[in-house]
Amino acid sequence: MNEIEFWYEFASPYAYLAAARIERLVAGTPLRLTWRPLLLGPIFQRRPGHASPFQEPAPAESAYRRRDAERCAVAQGTPLAWPSIYPRSSLLAARVALLGGDEGWIAPFSQAVYRASFMEDRDIAAPETVLAILGALDLPGQAIVARATQPAHKARLASTVEEAVAKGIFGAPSLVAAGEVFWGNDRLEQAIDWALHPALRFPRRS
Amino acid sequence: MNEIEFWYEFASPYAYLAAARIERLVAGTPLRLTWRPLLLGPIFQRRPGHASPFQEPAPAESAYRRRDAERCAVAQGTPLAWPSIYPRSSLLAARVALLGGDEGWIAPFSQAVYRASFMEDRDIAAPETVLAILGALDLPGQAIVARATQPAHKARLASTVEEAVAKGIFGAPSLVAAGEVFWGNDRLEQAIDWALHPALRFPRRS
Repeated sequence: MNEIEFWYEFASPYAYLAAARIERLVAGTPLRLTWRPLLLGPIFQRRPGHASPFQEPAPAESAYRRRDAERCAVAQGTPLAWPSIYPRSSLLAARVALLGGDEGWIAPFSQAVYRASFMEDRDIAAPETVLAILGALDLPGQAIVARATQPAHKARLASTVEEAVAKGIFGAPSLVAAGEVFWGNDRLEQAIDWALHPALRFPRRS
Repeated sequence: MNEIEFWYEFASPYAYLAAARIERLVAGTPLRLTWRPLLLGPIFQRRPGHASPFQEPAPAESAYRRRDAERCAVAQGTPLAWPSIYPRSSLLAARVALLGGDEGWIAPFSQAVYRASFMEDRDIAAPETVLAILGALDLPGQAIVARATQPAHKARLASTVEEAVAKGIFGAPSLVAAGEVFWGNDRLEQAIDWALHPALRFPRRS
């Protein structure tokens, strides 16, 4: 059970920041890190009254979140260049990542997708970009994309989102450690400590 | 200009957690800490579609925020007992705190209000509680409460909220350091560093 789940959305800058440091944080611990791609769109659509916090109509909050992400990126030493189209559709990349989870290349693929989007301003929604990323990893891109877009696989991503919701996930990045959800790049350390140390855990108070 | 503003709402558990550690963080720095009470109600009412994040209709997120506050309280070593009525009206306490800002007792008063609400489950919306807190600080409670509820003073709190909105504040706790807003108990250190070190500051990228 010494596992920690990292749930991420390719369109989320905070998930990008978390992805940039999660492996370093887990290295040297006995934890097994599981990369779990999800789509926030279907989750946000269930929220009454507002969609993504990054698209919220409240302009102060929306501007704040961008600036906060910029400051957090600098503070943790991760380059961040805002994509010229934002947010970009993460659907294809998430479908492909799910296959990578089966086949052992999900972490390097996901890191490469994040770099493409948030460092190089490449359009990760375009099949060409995903094919180029797979090619750079010496993977058979055309065959993978063909499998990733089959109806059964599309349904699998949809059920992954349902699994996330059932766990109590409502945003990204989220970590699941010993049955509890931790939300945000600023909760990675807490989640890892929670997964590592049963003595830190305590029951809910409300 | 070596000032840092701490904007807080007495009903907010995260602001309580921030209030419990802000003075320790600022101690030993040349920063002047200014306590700025505000009301989030009038700010949330302007948001399209939803009110307080703690009252949001999305149950997963609402439950998460409570649990996160509990875990953060334990992590920083601050006792937290959920008030039996939640959220409690912070109107009277905020009006009184504003007077405390004029007269030099805002910090101990605000700390005492937070302790009453989040450690002792006392009803800070009740004048008796506020009078008891003022009395324990050797302050003339009746006279202060009478002044705090005069129309001109009520208007002053309302214009304080406008001032917060004009600065870009949309939640609590918020810090304002060198013209920028930092939101959340988990951003106190960043805000203090920003206030202290001009070399850390960089222009917006979007």
